[in-house]
Amino acid sequence: MQGVDPAWLPDRAFRPIGTRRTLIRGTGPLVDTVHGEVARACEQFGGRVERDAAPEPFDLVLELTGDDSSEAFTYEREGGRTTVTASGGPGLLYGLFHVVRLGEAAFQGSHGRVEHRPELALRMLDHWDNVAVHPVMGQVERGYAGGSLFWSDGRARGDMDRIRAYGRLLAACGINAVAVNNVNVHEAEAHLLTDRIGEVADIARELRPYGIRVHLSVTFAAPMVLGGLATADPLDEGVRGWWAETTSRVYEAIPDFGGYVVKADSEGQPGPFAYGRSHADGANVLAAALEPFDGTVHWRAFVYDHRQDWRDRTTDRARAAYDHFVPLDGQFAANAVLQVKHGPMDFQVREPVSPLIGAMPRTRLAVEMQATQEYTGQQRHVCWLGPMWSEVLRFRPEEGASVGQLARGGLVAVSNVGDDPFWTGHPLAQANLYTFGRLAWQPDAVPGRILDEWIGLTFEADAAAGVRVVLDGSWRTYEKYTAPLGVGWMVQPGHHYGPSVDGYEYSPWGTYHFADRDGIGVDRTVATGTGYAGQYAKPWSEVYESPTSCPDELLLFFHHVLYDHVLHSGKTVIQHMYDTHFEGVEEVEAAQRVWQGLAGLVAPARHARVAERYEEQLRSAREWRDQINSYFLRKSGVADAHGRRIH
Amino acid sequence: MQGVDPAWLPDRAFRPIGTRRTLIRGTGPLVDTVHGEVARACEQFGGRVERDAAPEPFDLVLELTGDDSSEAFTYEREGGRTTVTASGGPGLLYGLFHVVRLGEAAFQGSHGRVEHRPELALRMLDHWDNVAVHPVMGQVERGYAGGSLFWSDGRARGDMDRIRAYGRLLAACGINAVAVNNVNVHEAEAHLLTDRIGEVADIARELRPYGIRVHLSVTFAAPMVLGGLATADPLDEGVRGWWAETTSRVYEAIPDFGGYVVKADSEGQPGPFAYGRSHADGANVLAAALEPFDGTVHWRAFVYDHRQDWRDRTTDRARAAYDHFVPLDGQFAANAVLQVKHGPMDFQVREPVSPLIGAMPRTRLAVEMQATQEYTGQQRHVCWLGPMWSEVLRFRPEEGASVGQLARGGLVAVSNVGDDPFWTGHPLAQANLYTFGRLAWQPDAVPGRILDEWIGLTFEADAAAGVRVVLDGSWRTYEKYTAPLGVGWMVQPGHHYGPSVDGYEYSPWGTYHFADRDGIGVDRTVATGTGYAGQYAKPWSEVYESPTSCPDELLLFFHHVLYDHVLHSGKTVIQHMYDTHFEGVEEVEAAQRVWQGLAGLVAPARHARVAERYEEQLRSAREWRDQINSYFLRKSGVADAHGRRIH
Repeated sequence: MQGVDPAWLPDRAFRPIGTRRTLIRGTGPLVDTVHGEVARACEQFGGRVERDAAPEPFDLVLELTGDDSSEAFTYEREGGRTTVTASGGPGLLYGLFHVVRLGEAAFQGSHGRVEHRPELALRMLDHWDNVAVHPVMGQVERGYAGGSLFWSDGRARGDMDRIRAYGRLLAACGINAVAVNNVNVHEAEAHLLTDRIGEVADIARELRPYGIRVHLSVTFAAPMVLGGLATADPLDEGVRGWWAETTSRVYEAIPDFGGYVVKADSEGQPGPFAYGRSHADGANVLAAALEPFDGTVHWRAFVYDHRQDWRDRTTDRARAAYDHFVPLDGQFAANAVLQVKHGPMDFQVREPVSPLIGAMPRTRLAVEMQATQEYTGQQRHVCWLGPMWSEVLRFRPEEGASVGQLARGGLVAVSNVGDDPFWTGHPLAQANLYTFGRLAWQPDAVPGRILDEWIGLTFEADAAAGVRVVLDGSWRTYEKYTAPLGVGWMVQPGHHYGPSVDGYEYSPWGTYHFADRDGIGVDRTVATGTGYAGQYAKPWSEVYESPTSCPDELLLFFHHVLYDHVLHSGKTVIQHMYDTHFEGVEEVEAAQRVWQGLAGLVAPARHARVAERYEEQLRSAREWRDQINSYFLRKSGVADAHGRRIH
Repeated sequence: MQGVDPAWLPDRAFRPIGTRRTLIRGTGPLVDTVHGEVARACEQFGGRVERDAAPEPFDLVLELTGDDSSEAFTYEREGGRTTVTASGGPGLLYGLFHVVRLGEAAFQGSHGRVEHRPELALRMLDHWDNVAVHPVMGQVERGYAGGSLFWSDGRARGDMDRIRAYGRLLAACGINAVAVNNVNVHEAEAHLLTDRIGEVADIARELRPYGIRVHLSVTFAAPMVLGGLATADPLDEGVRGWWAETTSRVYEAIPDFGGYVVKADSEGQPGPFAYGRSHADGANVLAAALEPFDGTVHWRAFVYDHRQDWRDRTTDRARAAYDHFVPLDGQFAANAVLQVKHGPMDFQVREPVSPLIGAMPRTRLAVEMQATQEYTGQQRHVCWLGPMWSEVLRFRPEEGASVGQLARGGLVAVSNVGDDPFWTGHPLAQANLYTFGRLAWQPDAVPGRILDEWIGLTFEADAAAGVRVVLDGSWRTYEKYTAPLGVGWMVQPGHHYGPSVDGYEYSPWGTYHFADRDGIGVDRTVATGTGYAGQYAKPWSEVYESPTSCPDELLLFFHHVLYDHVLHSGKTVIQHMYDTHFEGVEEVEAAQRVWQGLAGLVAPARHARVAERYEEQLRSAREWRDQINSYFLRKSGVADAHGRRIH
């Protein structure tokens, strides 16, 4: 697309295919998509593409062998010919992008037949896009990449080419579902479900050729807000009828509609609590309406008391999702998915894995990540989240399945995309979107390999090593100069950018560090604290219960310790804080130098945008370092062992 | 006015005049105003009013004896007749309101001839009203009383009856000048000076019968923004010509226009620094334009670096106004008034008097107060500022004149009025507006007497004692539960409501308390600190230099001391903090009880409004108490001597 960054699908990525002879077999809309991709490549690079029967020889055969909707494909290379087969259109499309990723290697040597299939059936992006500009949150809540791809100032944005280009990028990294509006559903957004469903159908039409289904965030109060009913009680017959009728009209407009996303009884949104009903009751009324159409309701588990009194030490926000939902295990309908944030708080740079995951064996769970960098630098800082997500997905709540395996309801990320020419504001934040898609396809993938894949597609070869250096450790760097040892927060309230050590300390949000002159951290043990550690199965409940066994990086999430507490690293907590904050800034300085060295190796506009963001990242990282170090020096009175300047 | 609170001019306040026989002598618009007031009172209460020659006897004679514009009047009572004379219309109007204030006492006994004249010629309200709603600051910047009386959503509000009623209230407390728009002049407001001057003239027309002149806040960049010039350099001939020409057109529209108010080179507003010119250069170009018409420019001295690095301990915002302006003493034109905030920072609940006042003998200074309670409870808390203002006005910077006497350029307050039916949001905040006007008339007045005056006019007699109790000590109560010992701030950034001890600690605003585990306060001494104390003349420079002689209430403004530093009160700093915070809340609780006891004695709507605000004040006061006490307990580790609960 003119004026828009090609991200991980630059023309050159199609050169290996575009210079060769390809045969495409089969029919259907996604086969047409595949054909269109290959034909465009051939047009540009001089190759040739044929459909169905055609004279040999071919370098590449892409063949649809059935008429199902499978996403799996086989890949093999033999006798100088590369063959991809799939029984469903989506599989063939994913197979094509597999060949694109392989590049020239797809046409070299030979390779036995291997079947590829996604480990998770649902790989989804939630857009927190508002239809109307919200007075505080703007067009995209927690959006750092310009406006919305879908909506503009109350109306559909109408840039169908851009939506199609977006779908293409998503398919190329494996995403197959998009929720097109914010989980906080305001007045304008509510109407997407009924009289404005046509606008959602328009989006669906553009994404369908890439195997992507649309979902809609709806308000639990819709029967009242839109239907004029006197109640939204999920057990009310009129309410059930309204949802059924409304949903059938949705499917008339969008036959492959994916389903609903609901944030209920959370941060002010309406929900079943108002009627004395459970969240299973709430989810099930929507699930029943969706069931005849194979639709799914994603019911978010982000339920907690956001008007907590900071003076109340007995309430622990971290406990909330588990306490609310575990008693409901087994009560959710088969097509109701409980969507759980990966950590118990809210997308901090370091959190333990939510104890809900693994604790509801009779419930389909989806795990929610956050690609948009709300708490991780807001796409002004480089912070590649692949290693964090991978740690979460490989975590085993108990002996047996990993989080990635337990996420039977899918993997969901809050989108980091907007109408910015680079899609994600910070060009390097594209790596998060790509990595998310690939991890959703294969949760146990090695994130560094995904990073290499993304770099190989996106950058010229001579920039690859440098790009890898600036991204690879960037999450740990960000962690170093922000909130230490898992304690989280310490951010400016409201917008969540930049440091404020006490910013959430005396707030109603349940987000505290409890630092005093002697120590810091939240006692979440069973023995003396809030008991949160006991929400885990063994061995984790035991590991987390004791500061001796608790991993350093989560120590302050689970324990209140003295500043001179010695970590496994051998450093005291306070010296660790000083050291990591100095190191974090030094690492940003080093990364900035590496990036500067890539001038000439990276497209000028992209290089300039990243360079500009590094200026801000460095300023901000120094501010983090100095505020946190000063705060704790003043509070603890412990001097830096290395005598560095703390203000 | 229907639906609007009568404030300190309820009908009953005119009963003593309205039941009597009054003769009015003289002609002119303000005499007509006087006649209208008396006639209305007589209509209501059965008295009689005549003009000029009329048969005796009369109980009250109001006589204009000249044709100047003097504001002075004489008052006497002899032979059963009360006589007010004045050589100017304004004086006669003030004389009438003097009689209103006296009530029945004006018609009893006898009273020798006394001349009353305002000690300050300019008694002004600055409205921080925006014409267009500002995206952050709203219709009225720091406004807590609804919308603007003058402007609504980009247009003139057009409620001329309300503006007239406002003028009447102001005249009755002695105010004679109103700046009709915010000192932060945005796009829409800029045009009031030229193509929208007619809207200002409309306001002037309504206020003129009450002896009130209008002023306009203008942007220093007006020659560029409005005039299309390439520069706003005050020494540029084109710029001088533009101001002269523009000003002459202003006076065509408003012959008694008061002048300009300018916030330049301050918090992002444009100013002469951009051209390497001084603030005297800047002020004088406007003064020259105003001079032929007897107009005045009020040039605000609120110039400081609002992008300070908190790490920089050498810069002290408190020093800024003095450092900027004292070198310019003698350079300002005769009709240029330097408008100085009463304290060196920004209307905190406790500040020392600005050292600028008294340090510029060859410059006319106006002293600026803040009636709108930005930092003093935002008209949700009762906080009668009379005692604070009176302390400031009676302060003597050196041997000789008091601040009230040094304010030769007038006394100015930021208005606390909006389109709220009670004018000031909190009905008891009317007392601040009234007190300000009366102090501007007589800066050495005893504030308690002004309070009694206001209560006598506003409330029925049986409510007076209770109202006095809740207002009288309310400023000190507010001080007790908020930032201690003169250190200031500790408020939520941005909106400035509610506690945040570190809210401004690591900010660019120059507003720090420097609390660490050992002590708190800002060292502003000459010996070891920023040197600010040395900006005062003796004895104050010496008094403030030493923690031994520094008054307790300003200790932390001038000194960084240990928590166990013993105050003159005999308490340690930390124990003082705990004690005052517990006491402050107890005082609010007690005041709330007193107010509850006034049910039935106060008009129901007014009683209910105040009662509702007390709920919020008490909630907020407890939040202040708990956050500040917790913060300092955690930091100091010193337990409360009385073992009270600190969270």
